Amino acid sequence: MQNKVTPWEVKGNIDYDKLIKQFGLKPLSKLPKIFQEQVLFRRGLIFAHRDFGLIVDTIKNKKSFVMMTGLMPSGKMHFGHKMVADQVIFYQKLGAKVYMNVADIEAYNSRNTNLKELHEVAISEYLTNYVALGLDLNKCDFYFQSKRSTDSKKANAYYSLASMLSRHVTYNELKAIYGNTDPAKISSSLLQAADMLHPQLPEFEGKPLPTIIPVGADQDPHLRLARDLAKRYKLHKFIPISSTNHKFSFGLKGGKMSSSDPSSYIALTDTPKEAAKKINKYAFSGGQPTIEEHRKKGGNPDVDVSYQMLYYGLEPDDEKLKKIHDDYKSGKLLTGELKKYLIEKITTFLTEHHKKREKAKTIINQFLKKQGF
Amino acid sequence: MQNKVTPWEVKGNIDYDKLIKQFGLKPLSKLPKIFQEQVLFRRGLIFAHRDFGLIVDTIKNKKSFVMMTGLMPSGKMHFGHKMVADQVIFYQKLGAKVYMNVADIEAYNSRNTNLKELHEVAISEYLTNYVALGLDLNKCDFYFQSKRSTDSKKANAYYSLASMLSRHVTYNELKAIYGNTDPAKISSSLLQAADMLHPQLPEFEGKPLPTIIPVGADQDPHLRLARDLAKRYKLHKFIPISSTNHKFSFGLKGGKMSSSDPSSYIALTDTPKEAAKKINKYAFSGGQPTIEEHRKKGGNPDVDVSYQMLYYGLEPDDEKLKKIHDDYKSGKLLTGELKKYLIEKITTFLTEHHKKREKAKTIINQFLKKQGF
Repeated sequence: MQNKVTPWEVKGNIDYDKLIKQFGLKPLSKLPKIFQEQVLFRRGLIFAHRDFGLIVDTIKNKKSFVMMTGLMPSGKMHFGHKMVADQVIFYQKLGAKVYMNVADIEAYNSRNTNLKELHEVAISEYLTNYVALGLDLNKCDFYFQSKRSTDSKKANAYYSLASMLSRHVTYNELKAIYGNTDPAKISSSLLQAADMLHPQLPEFEGKPLPTIIPVGADQDPHLRLARDLAKRYKLHKFIPISSTNHKFSFGLKGGKMSSSDPSSYIALTDTPKEAAKKINKYAFSGGQPTIEEHRKKGGNPDVDVSYQMLYYGLEPDDEKLKKIHDDYKSGKLLTGELKKYLIEKITTFLTEHHKKREKAKTIINQFLKKQGF
Repeated sequence: MQNKVTPWEVKGNIDYDKLIKQFGLKPLSKLPKIFQEQVLFRRGLIFAHRDFGLIVDTIKNKKSFVMMTGLMPSGKMHFGHKMVADQVIFYQKLGAKVYMNVADIEAYNSRNTNLKELHEVAISEYLTNYVALGLDLNKCDFYFQSKRSTDSKKANAYYSLASMLSRHVTYNELKAIYGNTDPAKISSSLLQAADMLHPQLPEFEGKPLPTIIPVGADQDPHLRLARDLAKRYKLHKFIPISSTNHKFSFGLKGGKMSSSDPSSYIALTDTPKEAAKKINKYAFSGGQPTIEEHRKKGGNPDVDVSYQMLYYGLEPDDEKLKKIHDDYKSGKLLTGELKKYLIEKITTFLTEHHKKREKAKTIINQFLKKQGF
């Protein structure tokens, strides 16, 4: 099976080195120590970038920067989404002002008419999880595309940017990036580019600040478009957007976690019991068919979803992780034992997380009132 | 020469009856007396409409309605533009809330980068003329597309509408209407549709009000698009936009008045001396080559630009106009005499208008301060 990666499709086994070449990314090489504290950096799960040096320097020099992310709530927030949340919070702790947008106009344009429901899910599911995971709303500009700001200067500037960026892209460029060139797609793409660029307008942080946008391996074309538009725009000088690309999260059954298939993921609102059940029932195993065979040949942690979930962050201790890896590979650790360990880890995490969610709800209610939403 | 009328091209002699059929308009038939007070209605210069009955009823029942117009300042405001201004002010006096937008984003998207200059021209040239002609700024929502409102709720609602309308039109429809389907054109078209429709959103007049948009004979496709989009939009129920179509203004040398050719028009800021010079030098004559011939065969008022300028409003007295028409046709009135009469009329008008412009400037300064622009 050939590997195929576009923003709409991820098929086959992913060769990340090939992806780096295909998209013209830079591989992520040695980073200052502070980045090693984040498990996704430390374990090479964030594997490529564009202009990340700008952000590294900014952090080194303790200068201000912006971290931008967007979400289009479709169903539940799962451990795949958590990879982005972890990065958002990591940058915020390093001093970034976080911009977080809910792409509700994009959702409407791709046929979702129930904006009210979407707004509710964005808050009760996504934002609540973000706050429970550690997001500080006081250093965050959270907005819906359809309600950019209660500050009219900001609102006017943001939307006008989206409209005026249209001058700087051709039909053929959009066709090459998106395939689909419906007016709805074009309009959504330009709004998304404005999402990425507008924090640099004078109405927002006063002056252009370096902006980091962490994206999945497949989302690079959006970044490239925004970067190209920024260069061509006449009314404002933008700093090139910096981005990093992280690897795909493992779906329980292999492949990518997909919001449309609840048995492919564990949601951050799943109960520990539900999570345990999903792991036992669905989590693809890299072990051998029988215990005897497993003891003899060993398992394959590279394709074992339970091991990968630990690797992606549920086991933050590198030494422990290495031992699990080696024991599984040698056959000392059985699949059932590995799953049990993961279930323990995930139970602890979810129990703690759900407590934090309750606290988060109060914080969010106060925040929304203050925002005037 | 075949006649050809699109929003970008007007060629040949215009057969307005044919245009009505081509665009699917309704001819304008007998209107209540109040409309007869407006020279453009009385003389059939406003010749067609869509759903104008809604507005007639609204005025009859003294209900609230909206009058929407847009302008893209390119050079000077001339007597062609005045046809729209006269209608705007007529409706305002009948109780309409006027919405007036400066299409600066559209201008940027069609390659004009100097928005600051454009904003200055919009105020010093267009808005000043409008106020001098009688526009009451207290009953007017004047805005630039790039700065919709100092009320953030209004700004968010207006721009979001433009983005979300994109879902309801296909590439092929836009191609059929505009030919050009660059992203810039698509974006501008959707913003223009939002200009026409947004006064009906709850954030503006509280509830949807009937909206009248007077346009030139060639601008109907824009109206049709906005009307179609309104029907398809899911989040709000719009009243169909009403529109009227007026005939083309006569350029001095025949054809249409064109902002790009100063010898084709008389600007509202031309001095009486400049105007007289242009009329004497350029105004196309329907008269005969020699006085003898003219006395014998008579002139043709239908193609005589001086007569047409009187007909389009500079001679508001129908009886006097009829006498001029008949005398010119019979050969009693010579071209030189007709031009002299027009120059007298235009001198009176411009002298008075320039005085009013001075007063208007003070009013506008206060208005802009209050608006927070």
